[in-house]
Amino acid sequence: MNAGSLEFWYDFASTYSYLAAERIQPLAQSKGVAVSWHPFLLGPIFQKQGWDNSPFNIYKAKGEYMRRDMERSAENYGIPFLRCEDTFPANGLLAARITLCLLTEEQQAAFTQAVYRAQFAQGEDISDRAIIQAILERLGHDAEKLFTQAKSANIKQRLFDNTAQAQAKGIFGAPSFITPDGELFWGDDRLEQALDWVQKTTLTA
Amino acid sequence: MNAGSLEFWYDFASTYSYLAAERIQPLAQSKGVAVSWHPFLLGPIFQKQGWDNSPFNIYKAKGEYMRRDMERSAENYGIPFLRCEDTFPANGLLAARITLCLLTEEQQAAFTQAVYRAQFAQGEDISDRAIIQAILERLGHDAEKLFTQAKSANIKQRLFDNTAQAQAKGIFGAPSFITPDGELFWGDDRLEQALDWVQKTTLTA
Repeated sequence: MNAGSLEFWYDFASTYSYLAAERIQPLAQSKGVAVSWHPFLLGPIFQKQGWDNSPFNIYKAKGEYMRRDMERSAENYGIPFLRCEDTFPANGLLAARITLCLLTEEQQAAFTQAVYRAQFAQGEDISDRAIIQAILERLGHDAEKLFTQAKSANIKQRLFDNTAQAQAKGIFGAPSFITPDGELFWGDDRLEQALDWVQKTTLTA
Repeated sequence: MNAGSLEFWYDFASTYSYLAAERIQPLAQSKGVAVSWHPFLLGPIFQKQGWDNSPFNIYKAKGEYMRRDMERSAENYGIPFLRCEDTFPANGLLAARITLCLLTEEQQAAFTQAVYRAQFAQGEDISDRAIIQAILERLGHDAEKLFTQAKSANIKQRLFDNTAQAQAKGIFGAPSFITPDGELFWGDDRLEQALDWVQKTTLTA
């Protein structure tokens, strides 16, 4: 029985989105909440704020803190994490477009998690077509077919629309979570609150 | 018996520092951790990052989110909170200097909490000398004597030094918590982690 659903908005370069992608399924399941997966691009949103790079690179103290906080949080959760020094932020355009070609939430979840693990647990470059191809094949997909689809005008437009929609919903960072009644929660550390909100509002509705 | 101590670094205009100021004493006590109170000014640190205002005012979506997140968090904790629309960020210079005139951690804690409540629960302007005076008198202090001390070169220098020290420790926002072994935790939502860190490292030392 589903208590409600939660939108999970993420950018493939986002370290804290990796934590959320690892944690969201068992937590949501235990609360009877369904999850929908919404890849988008933070880059255009940052650009509108005047940033041509991740704020973690522009503001050095914040970037240094993020890496240490990620190490501690990942260790607390038992999630593997490699400090991403020079390669951050990764280019997640291909991974985001491929996600939008996949047909079910389950496929999107499995692909998203595999891409995050390749990047943050194994140190792989997720803009590398060969890395994405290996992930797709391991998950039993037709990689060539998906690469062709990912280049289509339709998929490009859908990613553009996702990003515009994210901004319209007030999203300014990742991960973000949006409840059916429009509450925005930002950050992996708000995941439990977001799920509790869905559970509470659905039960009392 | 003290398991160790935690430095609590805060700016009087910071909403999330208010939550931490309300929560830190019972939590720290339950874990046997002592707390030291370190007021500083975020303004000069923000200025070095190119910001002439709070990032919550510069980045509108982030500011809107902060106010909603504060409302939800305060309600979860049972802490009163008024949305601070036009008056944010307050000028906390006088309150910070007065805190540095107080002699014990207990006096600093009680004054800090009273100033935050005046600002965020009652909507008072904490740059108003009369508001600070009323708080000091309620707490049994000699307000006139403290106002004179607060204007002294010594106290001005101490606040300047606190701010320089905060930046040297890697602090870029408030509240921040620093453990005896130099771990930095940022945000009210990291308070429990910071206290657990002190407890863990002191017991195993």
